[in-house]
Amino acid sequence: MIIVLKPKISKREEAAVLAEIRKLGYRPHVMRGVARTVIGAIGDERTHKSLEMLTTWPQVESVTPIQKRYKLTSREAHSANSTITLSNGTVIGGKKFVVMAGPCSVEGEKQLLTTAHAVKKAGATILRGGAFKPRTSPYEFQGLGEKGLKLLAKARKETGLAVITELLSEDHAKMVAEYADILQIGARNAQNFQLLIAAAKTGRPVLLKRGLSMKIEEWLLAGEYVLANDNANLMFCERGIRTFETYTRNTLDLATIPIIKKESHCPIVIDPSQGAGRADLVVALCKGAAAMGADALLVEVHPNPAEAWSDGAQQLTLDGFARLMEELQPFITAAGKE
Amino acid sequence: MIIVLKPKISKREEAAVLAEIRKLGYRPHVMRGVARTVIGAIGDERTHKSLEMLTTWPQVESVTPIQKRYKLTSREAHSANSTITLSNGTVIGGKKFVVMAGPCSVEGEKQLLTTAHAVKKAGATILRGGAFKPRTSPYEFQGLGEKGLKLLAKARKETGLAVITELLSEDHAKMVAEYADILQIGARNAQNFQLLIAAAKTGRPVLLKRGLSMKIEEWLLAGEYVLANDNANLMFCERGIRTFETYTRNTLDLATIPIIKKESHCPIVIDPSQGAGRADLVVALCKGAAAMGADALLVEVHPNPAEAWSDGAQQLTLDGFARLMEELQPFITAAGKE
Amino acid sequence: MIIVLKPKISKREEAAVLAEIRKLGYRPHVMRGVARTVIGAIGDERTHKSLEMLTTWPQVESVTPIQKRYKLTSREAHSANSTITLSNGTVIGGKKFVVMAGPCSVEGEKQLLTTAHAVKKAGATILRGGAFKPRTSPYEFQGLGEKGLKLLAKARKETGLAVITELLSEDHAKMVAEYADILQIGARNAQNFQLLIAAAKTGRPVLLKRGLSMKIEEWLLAGEYVLANDNANLMFCERGIRTFETYTRNTLDLATIPIIKKESHCPIVIDPSQGAGRADLVVALCKGAAAMGADALLVEVHPNPAEAWSDGAQQLTLDGFARLMEELQPFITAAGKE
Amino acid sequence: MIIVLKPKISKREEAAVLAEIRKLGYRPHVMRGVARTVIGAIGDERTHKSLEMLTTWPQVESVTPIQKRYKLTSREAHSANSTITLSNGTVIGGKKFVVMAGPCSVEGEKQLLTTAHAVKKAGATILRGGAFKPRTSPYEFQGLGEKGLKLLAKARKETGLAVITELLSEDHAKMVAEYADILQIGARNAQNFQLLIAAAKTGRPVLLKRGLSMKIEEWLLAGEYVLANDNANLMFCERGIRTFETYTRNTLDLATIPIIKKESHCPIVIDPSQGAGRADLVVALCKGAAAMGADALLVEVHPNPAEAWSDGAQQLTLDGFARLMEELQPFITAAGKE
Repeated sequence: MIIVLKPKISKREEAAVLAEIRKLGYRPHVMRGVARTVIGAIGDERTHKSLEMLTTWPQVESVTPIQKRYKLTSREAHSANSTITLSNGTVIGGKKFVVMAGPCSVEGEKQLLTTAHAVKKAGATILRGGAFKPRTSPYEFQGLGEKGLKLLAKARKETGLAVITELLSEDHAKMVAEYADILQIGARNAQNFQLLIAAAKTGRPVLLKRGLSMKIEEWLLAGEYVLANDNANLMFCERGIRTFETYTRNTLDLATIPIIKKESHCPIVIDPSQGAGRADLVVALCKGAAAMGADALLVEVHPNPAEAWSDGAQQLTLDGFARLMEELQPFITAAGKE
Repeated sequence: MIIVLKPKISKREEAAVLAEIRKLGYRPHVMRGVARTVIGAIGDERTHKSLEMLTTWPQVESVTPIQKRYKLTSREAHSANSTITLSNGTVIGGKKFVVMAGPCSVEGEKQLLTTAHAVKKAGATILRGGAFKPRTSPYEFQGLGEKGLKLLAKARKETGLAVITELLSEDHAKMVAEYADILQIGARNAQNFQLLIAAAKTGRPVLLKRGLSMKIEEWLLAGEYVLANDNANLMFCERGIRTFETYTRNTLDLATIPIIKKESHCPIVIDPSQGAGRADLVVALCKGAAAMGADALLVEVHPNPAEAWSDGAQQLTLDGFARLMEELQPFITAAGKE
Repeated sequence: MIIVLKPKISKREEAAVLAEIRKLGYRPHVMRGVARTVIGAIGDERTHKSLEMLTTWPQVESVTPIQKRYKLTSREAHSANSTITLSNGTVIGGKKFVVMAGPCSVEGEKQLLTTAHAVKKAGATILRGGAFKPRTSPYEFQGLGEKGLKLLAKARKETGLAVITELLSEDHAKMVAEYADILQIGARNAQNFQLLIAAAKTGRPVLLKRGLSMKIEEWLLAGEYVLANDNANLMFCERGIRTFETYTRNTLDLATIPIIKKESHCPIVIDPSQGAGRADLVVALCKGAAAMGADALLVEVHPNPAEAWSDGAQQLTLDGFARLMEELQPFITAAGKE
Repeated sequence: MIIVLKPKISKREEAAVLAEIRKLGYRPHVMRGVARTVIGAIGDERTHKSLEMLTTWPQVESVTPIQKRYKLTSREAHSANSTITLSNGTVIGGKKFVVMAGPCSVEGEKQLLTTAHAVKKAGATILRGGAFKPRTSPYEFQGLGEKGLKLLAKARKETGLAVITELLSEDHAKMVAEYADILQIGARNAQNFQLLIAAAKTGRPVLLKRGLSMKIEEWLLAGEYVLANDNANLMFCERGIRTFETYTRNTLDLATIPIIKKESHCPIVIDPSQGAGRADLVVALCKGAAAMGADALLVEVHPNPAEAWSDGAQQLTLDGFARLMEELQPFITAAGKE
């Protein structure tokens, strides 16, 4: 930690800061600058107490941590890329570019199976579909629940696709883990730490969406809750952050691709459907994501978006998805993936 | 809903839109403007399906809902101010200005009881204190858990203060409700709808903090989850939103006071400690909140902020709190409260 | 400056950093921590070159400045509150609470004079009114120009009110300064440094609005352009920042009142009309501003807001303004002002 | 315009709204819905007055414009892509992918010419370099001024590269236009409409950066100031918006590429250097921009970034830039450009 004192502080006031630093287990190191005195507090910031409360002292101007707060998710902890292997053989984070596709919500057998067969044919290897839906309003469709999970399992059996679906409640963790290959933690639950722990403990791979206004450091720290609970199969998923712009539903922050690759060993997945909230932008965003080195995409696809029970405006048609997969090919190749 | 068509649309394309509107249960009403055709879709937007998926149609430019999506929390539903009465006689939302105060985290008996007696003496009627703490990092202090709840209950018994504490997990709802007078839903769980439902079902009053990047409409809709689950005792709590500014931890949006008063009948509480993240701004923010008509304050107070186990930088000292309560008096009076 | 090196850096790589620090005029001071080496670079950061480019070096993790970058606007430079005295005797920043009021745009003689007399009667001492209007679209009303300035001068003569009006162009600086007592720099020009310099050089007091996404440090630095060009009469004006919230036009950041008071000696003015963009929130925001210690208000008032040529939705009626001034009184008194 | 009335409004109150709508030149069209009455106001919103002031009326709930406010920059006005041809034959907006590169600031002859030759060799056709620099602090390097422009002209003569440089002041418009092929309007001046008009009037092509918190609609409207002043050679440049994230200096919004292509006929340029503020992210962002269909890149390159006089942290080395140009090739090809 670096503690900066205010100008013109008395010796006595400085000594009090030094004493407190020692009391909290750090070794202080004083540097006298031109305008201010700076104190380095030497010690492991992750095992010692934070010194940030010193900012309440009148003689202290600022306190700045030096160490990164995340450990297990960091590149420093694990320099090679981590990969996640699913039971159908799909590997996320490896040489192959992975596509997860399917409807926003599971609405019924026909809707799901039609979509599953179509996305498989177009090249997807993972089927997405919401059985439990977090909805802004209690009066909106909340998902089919376990019935939806059963349909997903049926689609998996028929097509060989792996299944990803959202976990909404600690109480459902076991049930959802029975049916799904990957548990998705949604943006609104990205700092619901109890849910993260429950998901981690199922042993299933976890896809952690970035919260609507989550800093990258906070995202890595939320991921830390998964790894620290003995689950090594974590992937991050950028799905757009909330900004002042209203043309798109969210602002998809594609810079997270090189950033997560730099800071962490975990795979990075891009969700352009939530990211834009508009189907007409999805193709371009997918091309950008592939070019920038994303490991996978999570794309919403529906046989008839205009009649979807949720988020119709952002879902591709089956044909639109097939075209996307074709158009994407040269960018995947250019990025050195298969 | 108002559907705007793109310019130069054929009759056939227009007819398809009209047919879909009818199919989804609305009665279309066509207006031909100078540059565009506009269709009003008449019907109850809260019971009919959303037409927003029409934006995926190539001939549609935009779809705008007309009705407000919240019902039970709205002023239209209940024109008088709602009040919440606690077992110690404190009424939130009435003529009396209410102050909730106490430490960020419950750390031990001495810390809590010292604070409780001090805040009571200064005029607070509700004791706050976190027993379960949502922490950005898994390596930070996570709260004392049930032991903390027991200490809160003890403080209540000794002082007569009511108790507010945070609920973090659906699985704890019953336990926390046994000890607490008000259940607090934190900003990071503001759209954890399962938790909101669990809290509502305990029957205890619920204080719902605004999420870090939550629009006012979303906040009212999240509150709708409480009221729609048969719990009428809801209060909203503004605690700052996340913006680009880094001087303060959050940007406290005091305009929410007149806005919530206008849109809803539920009480509005202001948390200046989280709002600023800096103790030196708390007094001024409390004065502003009182002047603008807030029903209550939620203030962090600690016997020794520099040694607090969490968020030391934003907690007032016991003396600081006593001074605040004195300085606040003329503003409460000026606002017509007691 | 504090330079943090990455873990496991070789002696040679460290030496290169030390050499560069010395080359740029600083004295390096090495601290070896548990996980990382930290270098303090001692020297005056405001006269030496920035070391931030060191972040491009592979062995460097971060570079953090220690000194504040603003000088003349800071409390450290001038510990007493600065006051600004206008020719009609109004003092901004002193014991008296000041109100500036008038229409968004000057539209004609009758509109302006009616408003001027009304706001004077209600207690305002400064008349606002835009003669040059910055408009998002080139097809919107751009202001009456010099004709508007002449009307403002006439209103001043008739009423004794001082006049504040916006300066949009360097080329108009002399002209506007001839007619106005205070030059207003609008939010969209808050970092138009050439305009700030031109305004400063007229010698007239300058009111600097905060930019839509301006950090407080940047605002103080923009103010530095005024003071560094030999104009001591600077006041800051908070008018709301841009956030994700769409209920209000902007989010009025009232915490700037105690922050500017802490960091700077210059007066702080609040503009609730732009801040909310809705007349129905203006009264509450004015009460909050007065309670929190603002020096002045800038309020939009129009004889008939529904027919205003710009920003009708946020202007008070003459009656509304008179009521505001009455209701405000107890809060001004409670804040210790007259 | 669509005017929504509040529930339970009297006939008299409704009639007053209808009268006002007619008075302002629109033809009202009433639709009675289930919960509310909606009025369509038929007429050209761009030539008639805005009805937004009606929101101040107590009986009105909301007013929503229907027409887009931009005309000349819109795809509707000009359905083909516009191209801009420079005197050295470079065409922006055509089949060829264009790269503009050079230092943040012009620092001296050697620095500029070394960079110019290097970027030309690597494939750039336009040289960037700031002669007038807008700096957050008045104590930072403000650019070499006309001396810098002369060096840019010299570099153009020696290399055949076209030149882009920033225009900061209306008073410099003629001078800068004499030396430069493209005038750049920086993010902080994106709504300095007087500067936009002055730039347009020189007849030189104008590159308009997006403001730090500028909505896409506002950006298109600012561009309207250029086209409406008889200058058809406008290009938009995304350079990152300001968000809560602090890992990067700005959040580069790559979705603007398909959005500008959809809404406008003008070319879209991406500036990844400002966008990220970190050289280590520039390569990935360039790949994404090329893949998503950008017309051009604006990249900061410096012979020795660590000693740059401004923004060192975000500038590529000469070698780094040459590598970028090579790595970019397959993505440009995949996007169907040359």
